[in-house]
Amino acid sequence: MMADKAKIGVLGASGYTGSELVRLLLRHPTVELTLLTADRRAGQEMRTVFPQFAPYQLPTLVAIESVDWNAANLDLVFCALPHATTQKVIKDLIAKAPQTKVVDLSADFRLADPASYARWYGHEHHAPELQRQAVYGLVEIYRDAIRKASLVANPGCYTSCAQLPLTPLLKAKAIETDGIIIDAKSGMTGAGRSAKEEMLFSEVSEGFHAYAVGQHRHMAELDQEFSRAAGQEVIVSFTPHLLPMNRGILSTIYVRGNRGTSPEDLHAILLKFYANEPFVHVLPFGQVPQTRHVRGSNMTFIGVAKDRAPGRAIVIAALDNLVKGASGQAVQNMNLMLGYPETTGLEQVALFP
Amino acid sequence: MMADKAKIGVLGASGYTGSELVRLLLRHPTVELTLLTADRRAGQEMRTVFPQFAPYQLPTLVAIESVDWNAANLDLVFCALPHATTQKVIKDLIAKAPQTKVVDLSADFRLADPASYARWYGHEHHAPELQRQAVYGLVEIYRDAIRKASLVANPGCYTSCAQLPLTPLLKAKAIETDGIIIDAKSGMTGAGRSAKEEMLFSEVSEGFHAYAVGQHRHMAELDQEFSRAAGQEVIVSFTPHLLPMNRGILSTIYVRGNRGTSPEDLHAILLKFYANEPFVHVLPFGQVPQTRHVRGSNMTFIGVAKDRAPGRAIVIAALDNLVKGASGQAVQNMNLMLGYPETTGLEQVALFP
Amino acid sequence: MMADKAKIGVLGASGYTGSELVRLLLRHPTVELTLLTADRRAGQEMRTVFPQFAPYQLPTLVAIESVDWNAANLDLVFCALPHATTQKVIKDLIAKAPQTKVVDLSADFRLADPASYARWYGHEHHAPELQRQAVYGLVEIYRDAIRKASLVANPGCYTSCAQLPLTPLLKAKAIETDGIIIDAKSGMTGAGRSAKEEMLFSEVSEGFHAYAVGQHRHMAELDQEFSRAAGQEVIVSFTPHLLPMNRGILSTIYVRGNRGTSPEDLHAILLKFYANEPFVHVLPFGQVPQTRHVRGSNMTFIGVAKDRAPGRAIVIAALDNLVKGASGQAVQNMNLMLGYPETTGLEQVALFP
Amino acid sequence: MMADKAKIGVLGASGYTGSELVRLLLRHPTVELTLLTADRRAGQEMRTVFPQFAPYQLPTLVAIESVDWNAANLDLVFCALPHATTQKVIKDLIAKAPQTKVVDLSADFRLADPASYARWYGHEHHAPELQRQAVYGLVEIYRDAIRKASLVANPGCYTSCAQLPLTPLLKAKAIETDGIIIDAKSGMTGAGRSAKEEMLFSEVSEGFHAYAVGQHRHMAELDQEFSRAAGQEVIVSFTPHLLPMNRGILSTIYVRGNRGTSPEDLHAILLKFYANEPFVHVLPFGQVPQTRHVRGSNMTFIGVAKDRAPGRAIVIAALDNLVKGASGQAVQNMNLMLGYPETTGLEQVALFP
Repeated sequence: MMADKAKIGVLGASGYTGSELVRLLLRHPTVELTLLTADRRAGQEMRTVFPQFAPYQLPTLVAIESVDWNAANLDLVFCALPHATTQKVIKDLIAKAPQTKVVDLSADFRLADPASYARWYGHEHHAPELQRQAVYGLVEIYRDAIRKASLVANPGCYTSCAQLPLTPLLKAKAIETDGIIIDAKSGMTGAGRSAKEEMLFSEVSEGFHAYAVGQHRHMAELDQEFSRAAGQEVIVSFTPHLLPMNRGILSTIYVRGNRGTSPEDLHAILLKFYANEPFVHVLPFGQVPQTRHVRGSNMTFIGVAKDRAPGRAIVIAALDNLVKGASGQAVQNMNLMLGYPETTGLEQVALFP
Repeated sequence: MMADKAKIGVLGASGYTGSELVRLLLRHPTVELTLLTADRRAGQEMRTVFPQFAPYQLPTLVAIESVDWNAANLDLVFCALPHATTQKVIKDLIAKAPQTKVVDLSADFRLADPASYARWYGHEHHAPELQRQAVYGLVEIYRDAIRKASLVANPGCYTSCAQLPLTPLLKAKAIETDGIIIDAKSGMTGAGRSAKEEMLFSEVSEGFHAYAVGQHRHMAELDQEFSRAAGQEVIVSFTPHLLPMNRGILSTIYVRGNRGTSPEDLHAILLKFYANEPFVHVLPFGQVPQTRHVRGSNMTFIGVAKDRAPGRAIVIAALDNLVKGASGQAVQNMNLMLGYPETTGLEQVALFP
Repeated sequence: MMADKAKIGVLGASGYTGSELVRLLLRHPTVELTLLTADRRAGQEMRTVFPQFAPYQLPTLVAIESVDWNAANLDLVFCALPHATTQKVIKDLIAKAPQTKVVDLSADFRLADPASYARWYGHEHHAPELQRQAVYGLVEIYRDAIRKASLVANPGCYTSCAQLPLTPLLKAKAIETDGIIIDAKSGMTGAGRSAKEEMLFSEVSEGFHAYAVGQHRHMAELDQEFSRAAGQEVIVSFTPHLLPMNRGILSTIYVRGNRGTSPEDLHAILLKFYANEPFVHVLPFGQVPQTRHVRGSNMTFIGVAKDRAPGRAIVIAALDNLVKGASGQAVQNMNLMLGYPETTGLEQVALFP
Repeated sequence: MMADKAKIGVLGASGYTGSELVRLLLRHPTVELTLLTADRRAGQEMRTVFPQFAPYQLPTLVAIESVDWNAANLDLVFCALPHATTQKVIKDLIAKAPQTKVVDLSADFRLADPASYARWYGHEHHAPELQRQAVYGLVEIYRDAIRKASLVANPGCYTSCAQLPLTPLLKAKAIETDGIIIDAKSGMTGAGRSAKEEMLFSEVSEGFHAYAVGQHRHMAELDQEFSRAAGQEVIVSFTPHLLPMNRGILSTIYVRGNRGTSPEDLHAILLKFYANEPFVHVLPFGQVPQTRHVRGSNMTFIGVAKDRAPGRAIVIAALDNLVKGASGQAVQNMNLMLGYPETTGLEQVALFP
């Protein structure tokens, strides 16, 4: 019955993670979209901003400041706003509508440590008490905490694609913690929808490059999560690259087994860890994943292969940065927070070719 | 309950229309895939041929000749085989298992006239009696006949993308029947999965060209359907081109209004014709569609604009060649033939970006 | 000897036609680049704006208003500025340095008729006396006039790709002048380097669409040139589309032979017209061109095929919009204006794949 | 004068390295192409196999076995044949026409050690005496030997893109020799022109993957050259990936400075080593290259950046796999072997966008 569906809002619906949320939620059987915001496009219909939604009924886009959070009476809000504005918006929202749960897709609540946040972002956090309450939203690692959370910090796409393959290995103390190298490659949608010269088709197609070499902000999140998993400080090398394609992240990760742990052992650990997970699939030993085979789905594929040098292994993970790396992960979090089966609305099979 | 689901087979599951059928049917709530064939890959798992299916349980691929049609006891078979072999396979299948319905995705049963078939394909049809029974499977035009059919000839992707915009205009006698020009552009998946030099990535990317200029076989199908719609012989100009992308067909169609019919009138005719259709969306007058906004969905977008020359209009249609242009259309046919709601399993929203 | 080389300036060097001019002129044996302007990037090195020039010595970018035209003592200037600013800049330049010749790559001097200009652009021309002197720079049609010109209006890329195949047919009165349809498709570099949302990689890749349907400004230029060629008013249908690739325009042109002129006759006319042209290649009858085979070169390929309907032909032309459609054509003009062999610096073979 | 030009043959002209040789040599002022072979296309014109050559006069393709090497009287032959056939063809050629020099683009003569060859390729070398004479053709490292060589083994594209950044650092003993990780990404033209399913446009576009993980044959060549440079055995980790684009290789290389050598020191070593090289450009410290900025040129761009972990650096190199990674490098070798200026015919500036 319509009245029983959860009322959902998407803040920042004019960006790619916003449109991806709308795509998934339009087909989710137990929720309804009742609020869509997009400040610069306020007053417009979603079909103007994203013509793929032309056939569907959706709320008109409004500005955030025009929303009465209490009257909106939302069960859950996805916040897909840029860094910085996010903290104030969520603080205000939760103050006015404490019954509304939040999944935040920005980086604003991912770092638990205020000092770490201040160091990487150059200013004090604007909502430190919320920062403490926020649960890190990587379901496969923090499922129980997420079920009980009212504010979940959805992980970054690069970090999801590094944590899913590495966290079980670090928890098992199966790999050396120094010298881990993550060579990551992402499709362009990971850079969002801002009109920047370097993101033009003609600048991107038929070419490839690394960026933010040695200094990417996602490293703070990696440090936090890998150190938690390992029980000691872990600092990895991480180099992001941009691929001339829309969707997909692939991480090629170079590790050394700890005290005689073989590549086959690492594979066995991952296979066991993810045996019952609906959205992580570990390939047979020696096989490696391709981003195209998870496109549009909430699936992560992981492969492990033997490197030439004794004791070294290459672990490769692939996911769709807009789905498992962002909006699909966010819906997975929502399902847990609202008590729905975890896979609802996320069953779509990858679109290949 | 599992036992209540219809049993479905896909013949030719190792091609792109085959994998697209599997993608859609895996999520269809009232059918189950119980047979997958692929002669050259017989004995292999579907995950070997299409790694995106690795997380799912699917029947092992078998060779067609090893199938006992009667024992298989299928409710419906999708036939995604190459031209020529199709006729014999379906003839044999229907002879042995008359209760099994068939949706054929090849061109073999699209032409109703044996003489026309012989002229375009250079040989007599191998199953002329089936050719007579076959219903042309463009749902929006032949819905009622399809409901009662046991053999449906699924339309070609190019022809679907030309018929959906033109047939209502021809039926209404709103446009001149001579001088119609269809300039069509298709993504590469329309060419299938054969390993040919001209289909290599390096031959296709960063370039564009027309092919089969003046002589494409799809013209026979266009002639038949347009002449039926107009009630007189119609011969159009049709030029197919190949786009450096995977999915999507866009037809740019140049027409002249009949006896004072304006471009706005043409738009009104289409708007009315498709008012209640779930899979055809007519844009506001003057707006034109983009293939990316229907990618992965079963939707067709149609736009009408005024040309410079008085009385002339430009009609543009876009669809995903693998979905509405092939496998989605086939599932839509299946839903009618098996008495399911027409949109079941086809609700997926387009994947953009 | 260095001192003997012609001194060349490029105004607007930070756009794609600007960088393409620099690419070509860096290897032109009898000119040297002594001035590069780019207002928003003034003070920067070209390698910052276009890293491919990092290994080469080039003048630092300056603002146009800082240039002393007389002191600069340039032999020729390429003007690759946006519409509107162009007229004033060239008027000022020619007033101060009448010895400096100009090839203008904007649309500002292409229309000879002030009334036509005012109608299409919505304001009076700012330099009507220069407008009268300007020679239309399509070398294959206006070679002699270009040799003597001091101001040449370089043709648009779409119009070049329509005129080269059509003008000889219109001059020969071989085709009917009404009902000509030009379905044109362009790579993204034709849209320039502006940071607009609709030009982002994620908005463009894996998709295709028409734009400015029924109303593109290039039509004014087509009207002028086709009417000149035919000796009577000619109004064509012209629909531009955007391809998910960088370089290349392909025009698919639908024509009817005049009074019994066959497609083969049309082919013969083109073959003869271009027999000695270094940069136009007419393919054997029935063969059609691909954009990828002219990429990076100054070549135009033209093909003619028979349509199904009697008397109708399909003429297809392909060129690189940044070379023959812009900067290569401009260098070809420069060679004539400065008395160099026409092909100097333009011999580069197409880059395929 | 025509008669003074060197006579050049290209064996295997129907592949991409073959066509790239023809592209470059057509514009080389002191050579003429007098022999083109392509066994499967023998008797055809080059324009049939590669339509971009339609405007140019080129020899008809012939089969290798039909060539009389002595009568052909070639100054130099480029051999772009598949592995295995190469050894016999060159052995025969040199026996019959000892005056003809050879640049071989296959892997057949790159390994100097017969034992290493046998281990990696699974059989004894068919021309061991030639294997001993062959000079490894990376000009920046072996320039003097190449000048005197009559048989040069052109390096592989992956290995060129790893050696140019690493060899100077190993020679200087500036980096630790264990733990070097080379994460390499290549455009599709590196895979050649064979019609294989996994190389189809629809299989490659919009996706990314690693292949031959832990076991690529190019490793033998890397081992040989790095061990030579370091004066001790060096075994690197090397993982190749395929990019959805045509041209370009980018190597992201993770190294540790030796005994206090900083990333800035590594940069200084490379800057000095390549100070006078025409085809290697070292970017300012901290800047990293993009493949698009070397496309179509013979240039290699190298960048060095500081990694997070103390003592670690990231070195990134980019080149066009068909030019500096294959045919451009081969022409550079030819220039040295025939006594021409090294840069002749290779001056073309990169084609971007």
